[in-house]
Amino acid sequence: MKPMGPIPAPFAGQDRLMIAGLDAEALVARAGDTPAFVYDLGMIADRVALLRRALPAAVGIHYAIKANPHPDLLGGIAPLVDGLDVASGGELASSLAVKAPAEISFAGPGKRDDELQAAIRAGATLNAESEGEVARALATGDRLGTAPRLAVRVNPDFELRGSGMRMGGRASPFGVDAARVPALVRTILAAGADWRGFHIFAGSQALDSAAIIETQAATVTLAARLAEEAGAAPPLVNLGGGFGIPYFAGDTPVDVAAIGSALGEALAGRAPVLADSGFAIELGRWLVGEAGVYLTRVIDVKESGGERFVVVDGGLHHQLAASGNFGTVVRRNYPLAVAERMSAPATHVASVVGCLCTPLDRLADKVALPEVAEGDLIAIFLAGAYGATASPSAFLGHPPAAELVIRGTGAASGR
Amino acid sequence: MKPMGPIPAPFAGQDRLMIAGLDAEALVARAGDTPAFVYDLGMIADRVALLRRALPAAVGIHYAIKANPHPDLLGGIAPLVDGLDVASGGELASSLAVKAPAEISFAGPGKRDDELQAAIRAGATLNAESEGEVARALATGDRLGTAPRLAVRVNPDFELRGSGMRMGGRASPFGVDAARVPALVRTILAAGADWRGFHIFAGSQALDSAAIIETQAATVTLAARLAEEAGAAPPLVNLGGGFGIPYFAGDTPVDVAAIGSALGEALAGRAPVLADSGFAIELGRWLVGEAGVYLTRVIDVKESGGERFVVVDGGLHHQLAASGNFGTVVRRNYPLAVAERMSAPATHVASVVGCLCTPLDRLADKVALPEVAEGDLIAIFLAGAYGATASPSAFLGHPPAAELVIRGTGAASGR
Repeated sequence: MKPMGPIPAPFAGQDRLMIAGLDAEALVARAGDTPAFVYDLGMIADRVALLRRALPAAVGIHYAIKANPHPDLLGGIAPLVDGLDVASGGELASSLAVKAPAEISFAGPGKRDDELQAAIRAGATLNAESEGEVARALATGDRLGTAPRLAVRVNPDFELRGSGMRMGGRASPFGVDAARVPALVRTILAAGADWRGFHIFAGSQALDSAAIIETQAATVTLAARLAEEAGAAPPLVNLGGGFGIPYFAGDTPVDVAAIGSALGEALAGRAPVLADSGFAIELGRWLVGEAGVYLTRVIDVKESGGERFVVVDGGLHHQLAASGNFGTVVRRNYPLAVAERMSAPATHVASVVGCLCTPLDRLADKVALPEVAEGDLIAIFLAGAYGATASPSAFLGHPPAAELVIRGTGAASGR
Repeated sequence: MKPMGPIPAPFAGQDRLMIAGLDAEALVARAGDTPAFVYDLGMIADRVALLRRALPAAVGIHYAIKANPHPDLLGGIAPLVDGLDVASGGELASSLAVKAPAEISFAGPGKRDDELQAAIRAGATLNAESEGEVARALATGDRLGTAPRLAVRVNPDFELRGSGMRMGGRASPFGVDAARVPALVRTILAAGADWRGFHIFAGSQALDSAAIIETQAATVTLAARLAEEAGAAPPLVNLGGGFGIPYFAGDTPVDVAAIGSALGEALAGRAPVLADSGFAIELGRWLVGEAGVYLTRVIDVKESGGERFVVVDGGLHHQLAASGNFGTVVRRNYPLAVAERMSAPATHVASVVGCLCTPLDRLADKVALPEVAEGDLIAIFLAGAYGATASPSAFLGHPPAAELVIRGTGAASGR
């Protein structure tokens, strides 16, 4: 038997799964069919509120929409946050529908000319990833007769310890090496562009609060040093994010109160060059990941070689990360449950496999489950981020999953 | 510097990349834009012909459409092969547009009732994966007043040595353990269904010809034993496939002549119970993988930490497997080239990264390349199978890749 990750607090301890106070089967009926993702906007609002209470008042909250760009979710979260961070022309267009251009910033190492043009025309901020991109953005601005809004994405000379994905402290396709940043800022200013500041992202999916605290302090110090060397104060310092969520057995949540308090101290002691700068935290997964549940129905329960397999109508074509095939070295189990019998005692060890004709499509490996039969609903938690859009949805020709965004009036959203 | 896999023979040694006799830039213009997949039907026809020459005349060739279900490709390959193997209701519908129902078989461990119904109604063969599925298929047939065409997918008691994905020889969600197969065949026959035989798939992406030969012989022996125990001769034995293609440095192609010749011997010596059975090989990747090229344009060339990065407008959202994030334990480099200068000498070591804002999006790691500049076209080979449909195309909101199926009149398709 292998362990599963922890079921998020709002769902843990339930008997029949309720999301935002609504029964899982009723939600499937509303979504039309299984497989379906259900996202609870109430839980997302709770996360934003929790973070607001923890952070110094001066620190803005940005949502990285790559984590979940569903239009209804985006429309729900946009008024709650101070900015949207996008990674493509497509995400830019979605964000412009729900947020003012000045509150949108666009990062990504391979922005095409048509994407630069769309951002400059709209008045969104480009987080420039290289000297070459700055040159292209300035040339595009000249052509359009519009001064581009340009921040510089910095490849920091440190990394976020313990992060699932390190994005600093080494040779990287992201951002400009810190040592070359002051010269680039001077180039931007000399060209008459609207310099917006720094974007410094050191890693993601980190659960070690002490490492996040240390990284944020180092980021504030780095921003000050770069600003002093450039001879210009950054209007905004995007401190990145990197807060993880507990997916696997033994994982524990980050301590946002401690992080917020330490960030307050770091900002209180910041160098004079940053006195008038704004600051922001950019989060995706931490804001929305726990608010989503993937619901899939059992098609078959079978035995082979002395093992039990529960075959469901979903799979890695909707939830690639849960199958352990996306950026994971060692496959571990996401939390899941039989929706109708969450509190029933486990009676068997079984693997939950998707409907795809590939051994990769394993959603849970040898977990303890209660009785399961054809027709039962399986809930896979932590499906709010990097699920539907981060999976190969056309693989093997199955339909896409339904996606339902709810804001219930029940307990889950009323907290 | 790290090595790349071998460029497929029809493209190797070129100066400017030509596909089916057409220049890569002209093909991009025809596709509309980069990134684009180009598939050469001429190369696919050559593969089918090569296999026909190698195999005993009695052995049919099936195409597993999951490898590449593009409608134009499917329409092109369908008349060349004896059967299409599908893995979903969606693939079934695509196949029914180009092939007779009796030449279509449907495998997959999680077939929904609506999928069983569609197959039975159409007259396609269901490769049943469990006793439960047989019961559901029989009930559906009763409801429809149509005897279902049912083959039994067997979980063999051996595996294909050296295959990229083992699908036999152990507890498995696929098929019915060999020991239980004879009883299930008798159930099918007693119910008056149209028993079609066996589907025995022991692994995939194997490059060891000796292992394939051994597995095919064992499969013929197993089919005979199961038929004798069931007291019924199988109309068809689908021997599976599993022929790999060389993706990585050091990989060598399978020896289809040797495989065909050995299979001829195995069939010549087969048990009397199989005297009147038909046989088929089912291949996906081997038929179409080398015939596809992914073309993506350079957006930026940048330096960081002493390393060079070539940033392209494509990425893992179109070619997940090339990034090493789909069923791969150790990331290795697919073959790629600068399309305009395939024969130019290497001058730099660089990593080729996609446009996505994630460190996972690395299409080549520290490979030797000639001079590369913004605007150059990069060709990533071996993109004909498990590319466009096996990648998270919605990830980060970029457009899908263009797909172009050609049958040129030039050298490549005229061989």
